[in-house]
Amino acid sequence: MAMMPHPLDPLSPAEISLAVRYLNNAYPSDKLVFRVVTLLEPPKALMIPYLEAERSGKRDITAPKRSAFVQFYKNTAADFREVHLELDTGKITKEKDLAGRHSYVDTDEMQAAENACIASAEVQEAIRLLELPEEAVVCIEPWTYGTDGMNDMSERIIMCYFYMRLGNHGDANHYAYPLDICVEMSGDLTVKRVLSLPLGEHDKTGLVSEVGVKPFDRNKIHHTSEYHPDLVTERRTTTKPYQVVQPDGPSFQVHGNLLTWEKWRMRVGFNYREGLTLHDITYDGRSVFYRLSLSEMFVPYGDSRAPYPRKAAFDLGSNLAGVNSNNLKLGHIKYFDGYHHTSAGDPIVLPNVVCCHEIDDGILWKHTNYRTQNAVVTRSRVLVLQTIITVGNYEYIFAFHFTQDASVNYEVRATGILSTAPINLGQTAPYGTIVAPGVMAPYHQHLFSLRIDPAIDGHKNSLMVEESHAMPFNDPDAHNPFGVGYTTVNHIVESETPLDLDVSRGRVFKIINENVKNPMSGGPVGYKLVPHYSQMVLAHPSSYHFKRSEFADHAVWVTRYSDEERYSAGEHTMQSLGGEGIASWIRSRPVPVSVRNEDIVIWHTFGTTHNPRVEDWPVMPAEKMTVSLKPVNFFWRNPALDVPVSSQEDNKSVLVQDQDQDQDQHRGAVQADACYKL
Amino acid sequence: MAMMPHPLDPLSPAEISLAVRYLNNAYPSDKLVFRVVTLLEPPKALMIPYLEAERSGKRDITAPKRSAFVQFYKNTAADFREVHLELDTGKITKEKDLAGRHSYVDTDEMQAAENACIASAEVQEAIRLLELPEEAVVCIEPWTYGTDGMNDMSERIIMCYFYMRLGNHGDANHYAYPLDICVEMSGDLTVKRVLSLPLGEHDKTGLVSEVGVKPFDRNKIHHTSEYHPDLVTERRTTTKPYQVVQPDGPSFQVHGNLLTWEKWRMRVGFNYREGLTLHDITYDGRSVFYRLSLSEMFVPYGDSRAPYPRKAAFDLGSNLAGVNSNNLKLGHIKYFDGYHHTSAGDPIVLPNVVCCHEIDDGILWKHTNYRTQNAVVTRSRVLVLQTIITVGNYEYIFAFHFTQDASVNYEVRATGILSTAPINLGQTAPYGTIVAPGVMAPYHQHLFSLRIDPAIDGHKNSLMVEESHAMPFNDPDAHNPFGVGYTTVNHIVESETPLDLDVSRGRVFKIINENVKNPMSGGPVGYKLVPHYSQMVLAHPSSYHFKRSEFADHAVWVTRYSDEERYSAGEHTMQSLGGEGIASWIRSRPVPVSVRNEDIVIWHTFGTTHNPRVEDWPVMPAEKMTVSLKPVNFFWRNPALDVPVSSQEDNKSVLVQDQDQDQDQHRGAVQADACYKL
Repeated sequence: MAMMPHPLDPLSPAEISLAVRYLNNAYPSDKLVFRVVTLLEPPKALMIPYLEAERSGKRDITAPKRSAFVQFYKNTAADFREVHLELDTGKITKEKDLAGRHSYVDTDEMQAAENACIASAEVQEAIRLLELPEEAVVCIEPWTYGTDGMNDMSERIIMCYFYMRLGNHGDANHYAYPLDICVEMSGDLTVKRVLSLPLGEHDKTGLVSEVGVKPFDRNKIHHTSEYHPDLVTERRTTTKPYQVVQPDGPSFQVHGNLLTWEKWRMRVGFNYREGLTLHDITYDGRSVFYRLSLSEMFVPYGDSRAPYPRKAAFDLGSNLAGVNSNNLKLGHIKYFDGYHHTSAGDPIVLPNVVCCHEIDDGILWKHTNYRTQNAVVTRSRVLVLQTIITVGNYEYIFAFHFTQDASVNYEVRATGILSTAPINLGQTAPYGTIVAPGVMAPYHQHLFSLRIDPAIDGHKNSLMVEESHAMPFNDPDAHNPFGVGYTTVNHIVESETPLDLDVSRGRVFKIINENVKNPMSGGPVGYKLVPHYSQMVLAHPSSYHFKRSEFADHAVWVTRYSDEERYSAGEHTMQSLGGEGIASWIRSRPVPVSVRNEDIVIWHTFGTTHNPRVEDWPVMPAEKMTVSLKPVNFFWRNPALDVPVSSQEDNKSVLVQDQDQDQDQHRGAVQADACYKL
Repeated sequence: MAMMPHPLDPLSPAEISLAVRYLNNAYPSDKLVFRVVTLLEPPKALMIPYLEAERSGKRDITAPKRSAFVQFYKNTAADFREVHLELDTGKITKEKDLAGRHSYVDTDEMQAAENACIASAEVQEAIRLLELPEEAVVCIEPWTYGTDGMNDMSERIIMCYFYMRLGNHGDANHYAYPLDICVEMSGDLTVKRVLSLPLGEHDKTGLVSEVGVKPFDRNKIHHTSEYHPDLVTERRTTTKPYQVVQPDGPSFQVHGNLLTWEKWRMRVGFNYREGLTLHDITYDGRSVFYRLSLSEMFVPYGDSRAPYPRKAAFDLGSNLAGVNSNNLKLGHIKYFDGYHHTSAGDPIVLPNVVCCHEIDDGILWKHTNYRTQNAVVTRSRVLVLQTIITVGNYEYIFAFHFTQDASVNYEVRATGILSTAPINLGQTAPYGTIVAPGVMAPYHQHLFSLRIDPAIDGHKNSLMVEESHAMPFNDPDAHNPFGVGYTTVNHIVESETPLDLDVSRGRVFKIINENVKNPMSGGPVGYKLVPHYSQMVLAHPSSYHFKRSEFADHAVWVTRYSDEERYSAGEHTMQSLGGEGIASWIRSRPVPVSVRNEDIVIWHTFGTTHNPRVEDWPVMPAEKMTVSLKPVNFFWRNPALDVPVSSQEDNKSVLVQDQDQDQDQHRGAVQADACYKL
């Protein structure tokens, strides 16, 4: 017996096929190239009553219809279309002409561009001029074209950067040998231009030079940039095994896409673009979030010399976090699959793209009563929902951590290999780090946009900005005779706006429900955003980088909820020109839109200005960034008060013996592995 | 055969006894009350050649002499003295008259104050006026007196705040019933004054009222503020066991106080004041830090009404992190003991005060080569050195995390119970949160001072402040035609100074060695401080809070190394008046002292403005703060490149089955517990 899908479940393979069949029937004489066939999430206005009825156990509620969101090329990419399609009837409820916009890139297109590029006689000639070593294997790294004003963006262009590896091993690190040429490939897979790259010190003009391919400098050859275990001879042997055992199984339950764990309940979603999404998140039966997702990310590079301003990746909008999700099976356990499709519309499985597991996170709370010497301690168990994407050289590990004290931590780890550029031996650059001979790792930023669609005890929420201020001193009315007093001052944001962090004032962003009071504090219930303090985008406001990444210059944004507004740099980031995204939405409203006691969305921009360290080479130790959402006067006491107390029975830890036997004869002989009880 | 102690080993019990014997012999007709008998760490000038010789394997090097640092009262606390004493000869090498200064407080003194307070007829009368319920048990919470200018600080005063618990259970939460009186106790254990506390809205005068003890409002009685498992009836049963197994034992080795783990090598220290200290830290044979320690912490409260400005705890200088360290045996494994002594000088063991264990921290680095689909992934193993202190109501968990990629993360978790004040039912306060009926948890700050004594490839280091700046736009000389360029600008700090964070400029603090160049980058080797962004002290510069916590108004300080300067709020924080500590050191130099290419110390102030949440009651979920020290161009490539690659053999994880059987018949039947391999 097949269960009815939930309205928020991703489309099944059968539903993808059904949508494709409807459309092929609707266009019998055309060749449709399917770019996107995914769930059209039902309008929130329909979902709210459905979810409330569902949670209250009503069985006679009618589910909103399931619909597909489809984007396709009709015969050619120039005829790019979007339709919304009811799956039960095949009825097209919305049709949109996307002519002039660019769809994302995919592996097929990248590979076709690589192949056409390398096959071109002109490129072959340029490679010949490089006079590469005999054992060289040329690798082309195709990149989406970050708009720089140097080409007409109505034409699709793929940039091909050149690298080589030495020898036969397919996993030799080609990023260690950036070559001095690059190629502009047209969407029709013809070579537009072969360019030589600027080398060494800053190029005076900042413009593209079309000449000057020079022979490869063989003094750049080195043997220290490998990462693959076959090619790294040193390998430490000191790390002893460490295993986690859960003799009674995990503490979570899964029914389809419904996940429950320790008073948390949520639905797991997944789509081609955002990857993992989370829906209808409740704690102990109380609504907390309607939807959590990564909305967009932008990786602009800081090297100002042409053609590097074209390196500026929208890894969700243009490259797709969902489709690029790693199969976590190697070294991981299969859990949730995702579904996508071929360009012909045949469903394909993206296996094991979301994994779900528990970790221990040390002490959750502890108190020792010094009067009785009684210590009460609980340990923190955390539920992790994780996806990993590979976007060319880089990988990102995205994880939502749910805790027993009702917090959600969103952790991003950046790892993988630096994107590199060639440089002459002996030269340095003010916008990059020399990480190996002839290898410059340019400065860049990683800017993430986290979309927080709250439902704090309901859907009418507000954003309160609170600061801690010293009370006035030497002011007799201020009642601060000792000069030590401080209080909080706050205001509620009235209309859509960006906001900045200010740690010097202890600025805190609280998503509150003004209609629900905490019985203890007397104030509104809420959750606070604990941001990741980050430098905002460095590109100039007149630059394409800046104009295209509208979320990237303020840390916090608040908007009124709209079914249409999910991607903070706009729907179509591929070769975009700017003027779309979160700032444009706000600017476009005829009058300021109230966000007080309304259905609102909070967007948090965070990331890292990544000026590479030599230690980030040849593969980068994960850099962690964490954003938290923590209850603040949402509960009437510590929601983790009931977590079981650590007891000695559960304690599987053992003593470690000192290596100096003579000192240790008086100690127990048993071995220890960890100094706390799990 | 007893090993010779290392010069940095804490004093052994026998050495404590020896020092005490010498001093008792030197003062045969006096009664000495021993306050401090601890290792006098040898001068760094002597230690450097010794450690270098030791590391290079020389056996004929003479160790610096072992000396004791002793503070004692000669007959009375008024005659307070400090001596430095050679342990082999008994020779006193330094003697200091500390008359007028106050030593720390200890449990004995606190308990004596409590007992004398409750025994006083005046106090008994005040309690009678409170008309407490029959089953009430009064608990006195003694506090050090935070200087407020209302008393002569040459006299020692202990503040006694009053609480009650209801019923017989010794672990009932008395902080749930703050009473309306408090008492000033003199150092001679007599009652100075019984005061009633200000209640409700801000008191106009801000001054102490000596009248007005009113009956306890029985409507404040509630049953929801307990945390002890005996008293909490709800207890979740959903959390299934989670155990860590290290079948081959831990990856670290211990010889006495020498600890080695994964290329890291360090000496573990411990003293009465700072608690855990770490010394002579190297990675792969290269020097990184001479000493890491928490220097001080300050907890000022923001309630401006007298007598609350007296609540301002120096938990190291006045309360002692070492002596208050928890015995980690319950729920933990014994590892390093500490030693202290009675006031008579008899050594006592502080058992299990430092624990050492490994944890897994997810992915260390990963890359998937999309050409070959080969994924290479390593997992991060972390060594944790942890102590926990209880200071009355609060606990702090201090942990140094050493990673395989040569970083050190210092993690502080704050947990325990909020210090509470009484408030009338129905009233609110602008400087506190009502967490339970009649219970106000006042706003306060926790400000930590981390002392980083670096030795980056040697002892001559500098502090470089680096920022990421957009390149000028519309400036033809700037070569930034696309407006996307950015570069780093930096300067090296020339002389002692405080410094501030500035995330908007991406400000980074790099501790560098200008004499050692990285062979790849060409720049100096270094480690960077990744700060915890925090609001600085809110008290007014004229207040005692501000004047006493000199480290607390800037996030970073750099000073020239001095054997004498270890405590950033001064040697004697107990009832201090200000004018001592890090700002005073710098101010006192006749000329600015160079910190460029010198032996320097970096001090990082961080913490939290803790405006309590209702969720922090009755026991607070741990709030985490993390500071990192990360290599930046110290190594010539990723130092964790040689970490073993995760392989499927080690993978002990198992699949989790969906709870809906009908959906899952096609899946394997095996259960899963964690989605990654450990």
